[in-house]
Amino acid sequence: MEPSLQETIQLLTRTPAALDALLRGLPETLTMRNEGEDTWTAFRVIGHLVHCEHVNWMPRVRWILEFGDTRPFEPFERAADPSGSLPHQLNEFSRLRAENLAALEALHLSPENLSLRGRHPVFGPVTISQVLATWAVHDMTHLHQISRIIAYQSRDAVGPWIKYLGVLHCDGHSAKD
Amino acid sequence: MEPSLQETIQLLTRTPAALDALLRGLPETLTMRNEGEDTWTAFRVIGHLVHCEHVNWMPRVRWILEFGDTRPFEPFERAADPSGSLPHQLNEFSRLRAENLAALEALHLSPENLSLRGRHPVFGPVTISQVLATWAVHDMTHLHQISRIIAYQSRDAVGPWIKYLGVLHCDGHSAKD
Repeated sequence: MEPSLQETIQLLTRTPAALDALLRGLPETLTMRNEGEDTWTAFRVIGHLVHCEHVNWMPRVRWILEFGDTRPFEPFERAADPSGSLPHQLNEFSRLRAENLAALEALHLSPENLSLRGRHPVFGPVTISQVLATWAVHDMTHLHQISRIIAYQSRDAVGPWIKYLGVLHCDGHSAKD
Repeated sequence: MEPSLQETIQLLTRTPAALDALLRGLPETLTMRNEGEDTWTAFRVIGHLVHCEHVNWMPRVRWILEFGDTRPFEPFERAADPSGSLPHQLNEFSRLRAENLAALEALHLSPENLSLRGRHPVFGPVTISQVLATWAVHDMTHLHQISRIIAYQSRDAVGPWIKYLGVLHCDGHSAKD
């Protein structure tokens, strides 16, 4: 059985605090370094999560409620590099997430609402329920990515244990993060 | 440049709070389900982290300080299924981690100490520095795994977005987690 909407909301509620507990005050050798080439730092990932709170999840839910599948979602720009400090971005993520979840709860979406269809410009039909599940799994994708970015900084320091540390063998899907 | 010992300790300090913020109070549809077959639940992973605080990291540091590479580490048993509730296991993890980090700080390890060699029964020579780096990357491996286990529960709910959610394409290294 899939997690219910209320269960998904419980996960969405916790991600900002989990990332805050992990990253706030952590040295820049861990938060401001990437996995090489044009990959992202943990700081950059938090900036992306902030950007998505602004342009992606709740705006798309509202779009479907307003237009159904008669108009495709508007495409959104990928965010520029985040401005300000990591603590500032973490604060913003917590604040925006709380606002968005309050707005979601205020909609009192019925099961009929959840199955309403919108139109993704690439995928075609998607439901509100799928937007909301994706919101939470997107959090997990980026928590997964951040744990990997942090681990990567110590890839040489672990010596022969590298073989047993799964996070250092996760390189097949960076492009999808 | 690799993170320093002090930077590694800052990461080790934060993991219990990050996992607590993510998992405490989360519904059992997310914490008590696995990725199929004999894979682990998030609850089981926390039990494993608790077990490792007991038998792995600091005991091995002390072993190297006492025996150098004259005696291989004693093998340890993999933990049985954890007992008690998830909140209990999260409390235990926080408590033991704080105790172990206090014990580590009290050793005032010098750079010479950090490069002391022990003997792993399989790998052969390993240094204290490698044990400590592995401790932190092991945390990240399991945070990475938990984000994936949680995401897995909603793999069907995300619809066509599955293609873009990297965490749902991470299946090549479960055995090493």
